[in-house]
Amino acid sequence: MAKDKKPKIRRPRAETPKGFRDYFGTEVVERNAMLARIAEVYHRYGFDPLESSAVETVEALGKFLPDVDRPNEGVFAWQEDEGDWLALRYDLTAPLARVYAQHRNDLPTPYRRYAMGPVWRNEKPGPGRFRQFYQCDADTVGTGSVAADAEICAMLADTLEAVGIPRGDYVVRINNRKVLDGLIESVLLNNDLREPLGKEENLGRLVAQHFSAQSSVDIEETRAAIMRTIDKFDKVGLSGVLELLTEGRKDSSGAIIPGVGLPLDRAARVTEFLVSRKSSNELTLGALDQLLSHSRIGIEGVQELEQIAALLAAQGYGPDRIVIDPSVVRGLGYYTGPVFEAELTFEILDDKGRKRQFGSVAGGGRYDDLVKRFTGQEVPATGVSIGVDRLLAALREKGRLGADSQGPVIVTVMDRDRMADYQAMAAELRNAGIRAEVFLGNPKNFGNQLKYADKRNSPVAVIEGGDEQARGVVQIKDLALGARLAAEVETNEEWKAQPAQMEIPRADLVAEVQKMIARAARPADRQ
Amino acid sequence: MAKDKKPKIRRPRAETPKGFRDYFGTEVVERNAMLARIAEVYHRYGFDPLESSAVETVEALGKFLPDVDRPNEGVFAWQEDEGDWLALRYDLTAPLARVYAQHRNDLPTPYRRYAMGPVWRNEKPGPGRFRQFYQCDADTVGTGSVAADAEICAMLADTLEAVGIPRGDYVVRINNRKVLDGLIESVLLNNDLREPLGKEENLGRLVAQHFSAQSSVDIEETRAAIMRTIDKFDKVGLSGVLELLTEGRKDSSGAIIPGVGLPLDRAARVTEFLVSRKSSNELTLGALDQLLSHSRIGIEGVQELEQIAALLAAQGYGPDRIVIDPSVVRGLGYYTGPVFEAELTFEILDDKGRKRQFGSVAGGGRYDDLVKRFTGQEVPATGVSIGVDRLLAALREKGRLGADSQGPVIVTVMDRDRMADYQAMAAELRNAGIRAEVFLGNPKNFGNQLKYADKRNSPVAVIEGGDEQARGVVQIKDLALGARLAAEVETNEEWKAQPAQMEIPRADLVAEVQKMIARAARPADRQ
Repeated sequence: MAKDKKPKIRRPRAETPKGFRDYFGTEVVERNAMLARIAEVYHRYGFDPLESSAVETVEALGKFLPDVDRPNEGVFAWQEDEGDWLALRYDLTAPLARVYAQHRNDLPTPYRRYAMGPVWRNEKPGPGRFRQFYQCDADTVGTGSVAADAEICAMLADTLEAVGIPRGDYVVRINNRKVLDGLIESVLLNNDLREPLGKEENLGRLVAQHFSAQSSVDIEETRAAIMRTIDKFDKVGLSGVLELLTEGRKDSSGAIIPGVGLPLDRAARVTEFLVSRKSSNELTLGALDQLLSHSRIGIEGVQELEQIAALLAAQGYGPDRIVIDPSVVRGLGYYTGPVFEAELTFEILDDKGRKRQFGSVAGGGRYDDLVKRFTGQEVPATGVSIGVDRLLAALREKGRLGADSQGPVIVTVMDRDRMADYQAMAAELRNAGIRAEVFLGNPKNFGNQLKYADKRNSPVAVIEGGDEQARGVVQIKDLALGARLAAEVETNEEWKAQPAQMEIPRADLVAEVQKMIARAARPADRQ
Repeated sequence: MAKDKKPKIRRPRAETPKGFRDYFGTEVVERNAMLARIAEVYHRYGFDPLESSAVETVEALGKFLPDVDRPNEGVFAWQEDEGDWLALRYDLTAPLARVYAQHRNDLPTPYRRYAMGPVWRNEKPGPGRFRQFYQCDADTVGTGSVAADAEICAMLADTLEAVGIPRGDYVVRINNRKVLDGLIESVLLNNDLREPLGKEENLGRLVAQHFSAQSSVDIEETRAAIMRTIDKFDKVGLSGVLELLTEGRKDSSGAIIPGVGLPLDRAARVTEFLVSRKSSNELTLGALDQLLSHSRIGIEGVQELEQIAALLAAQGYGPDRIVIDPSVVRGLGYYTGPVFEAELTFEILDDKGRKRQFGSVAGGGRYDDLVKRFTGQEVPATGVSIGVDRLLAALREKGRLGADSQGPVIVTVMDRDRMADYQAMAAELRNAGIRAEVFLGNPKNFGNQLKYADKRNSPVAVIEGGDEQARGVVQIKDLALGARLAAEVETNEEWKAQPAQMEIPRADLVAEVQKMIARAARPADRQ
């Protein structure tokens, strides 16, 4: 019996893990081309690339995750034999904080860096929601100057234009967490209060005093609920925001969304704030200044926005590209100052065929506490993250992708003993810079070779049988023209009858294939 | 007491996990540039990019690892909440097998694909040995034709030249696992045996019969030991191989390496085999043909090598680029036919200052069993993997790297209230395609601004104080020239005294900076 102890063969499933996917051909080429264009802009702005390791200690990553909308998300983690817990990075910001803390003596200050690469989230996958995806970040570490925030916004506008989003089809919207803090103060505090507040501790105590009925309510929870509601402004409009801040709202499916429970007059301060975006940045800033005049932190935020707007105006970035918009929230994670978001303003059709704006493709802001975790020192930082997949989808919408999807010229195999001759043809074509290959599958059925060429999106097939060889000629076939028929043709004789095929001297192979490809690239010139 | 339950703050260590590292600036740029050049060659050969997910099920990866020299290496793995074990890929070949099995109905056959990206090994890190590193592979799946192997070898030669290894500084060496199997037969079997063998089962039984003294020895172990010894030929030479195959050998440190224990006449067959590499591929193949005439599998291997050599010769790849070399082994992992290796032949100094050849930078071969694991069907495949870090090191040796390490032009800040003016200057420079940034650190100490410029390897600094502004001029400073002194200069006045600085009209900023950068790029033109 011991002799027969052969292990049972169970075949593994050929599947990506749930929530993961593969990227093929053009998808990879298009993404790399876009990232290269982005890198070019970042480079011109003085940013240096950084590729940190994909694996970090869980300790270095910390527990906080960047996006409040996904509170259940986690990381992929495992324990080393010696004891350390390791994890895949979930974004590019936490690793930057670790890198800066580790290498700060060798890095310039300020340190401008960009990073591009996959990140991983251990969360429930859904349609279009993967557990591995690309991020593309640029950050400036080590300066508290709002000039750094302004620079990131200008660079973001330049980047969008560089990858193919025309001016007018996007807008970079800027707000400030300090302005939002000021608003929260004005909403939660007694109207009569004249003492400006800067610290959250005081805010909590005072709110408890003034809202005695709500003293048991967690201030942070209310603050977060208000922020989330502001974030929905685009979707639900002013009246929707009012309902959500007070008694709740019925959504389009009829479901009841519970309200935050604010008195109507307090909720109205939020809506007043939301309509403070005026026709110019100056007017918007004036309106904010008035609304937040009682709040020290709020006024500080408005002043920072004024400086940013002035810096951008001096470089020619007008409100056609960059606007102050008080409704920008950008999650609650770790932002401490200016926050910004790039939105594409052209319309697309959603799943249900309704028109809607394309929406956000990038966002970021100032976060001054990340490095402190490691070193104890305050290190101010600001940065932006581009949603690579969303931006690719946008470029697809605008027809800015798909330039380089042409397949190789296929040298077909009529006589399998003459493989060396066919390889030599392919080599000649390649040496002239033409993408070319010999068919390496089973050559018996010629139709299969043409089906293969079709699947590869080949522009031209080269055919040389014994007859052609004897006469010193080859056949070349315009496949763009013949693609429709290719699937049905089964023999070489039928194939030769097609009009797009021509016989040329073997010596002219490279020149004639070049001409045929050029012709295929300009279909308007053909009849 | 419950009130004071504040969590204790323990600062996380700012460190990459053991065996991981970060890549900065030029390192990232150089690698990406090299990979882009490789991709261009692969593309021209008709290969399509594939980026598979970094995470696979452990089941799909299988247990076998590619490299016999590292038998203890493992993967980074963890278990999902629902039960599946997941792992980071340890190479790009196992994921290709999974991808091909999963998507075979949508992919062309043959499927030529290339892949570039990090892989992870859970092994003990050492100097220069990391647990995350890049691989760059090209494979052709779905054809058993040796034309596919020949094509990969030709492409490998083209690739090395495209990234900057001149012809003559590399050689692609080709062997065949079937030839090695034939050799093993001739070593292990009785001389008198005339019956050719093809199957390992028979081999084992017959070896047990003929080597009755060794019948308890594991044939596979002996085979592997012989292979490993052949692999050391380059290092220990013919006499070393003889010693290692028989009674063992004292290495340079005096340590005894135990021998395989073959009788001397059997071991001599291996050395005879190793010197069968002659001055031309024809002579080598002739010698192999004689040596392996008794072995069916051996002769099959020689015939395949003949076809490959003929195909390559027809495309002009002579023995200056590609040679048949019986001493190539390439691990035992999963190769079933032709194996190949690209070796750089120029000399470098090793750690101890001794001259040695640079050695292997790429290798691969035919593996016909990987996809079968998933589908049960035989799917022949062949491919190559380039050692990205080794090839980068080689290019560094050849002085082919480091072209684009120039930093940005630094617009210094003399008056922090005029940040908008400085930003506008930087924007002007960038719009002319010049890499430029404003100094965003604390501007108080001007010397620090210059130290920063130095650290960034900036070619030019732009300086505009109130005086300059009033007169409509700016100062521009050639930092390449002034770098030596920069660290000591502490005030603007001293700085202005340096000879490489010039005053120019503000309106000429872009043109004059362009000139100064061009001058810095051609140091021979300077005095």
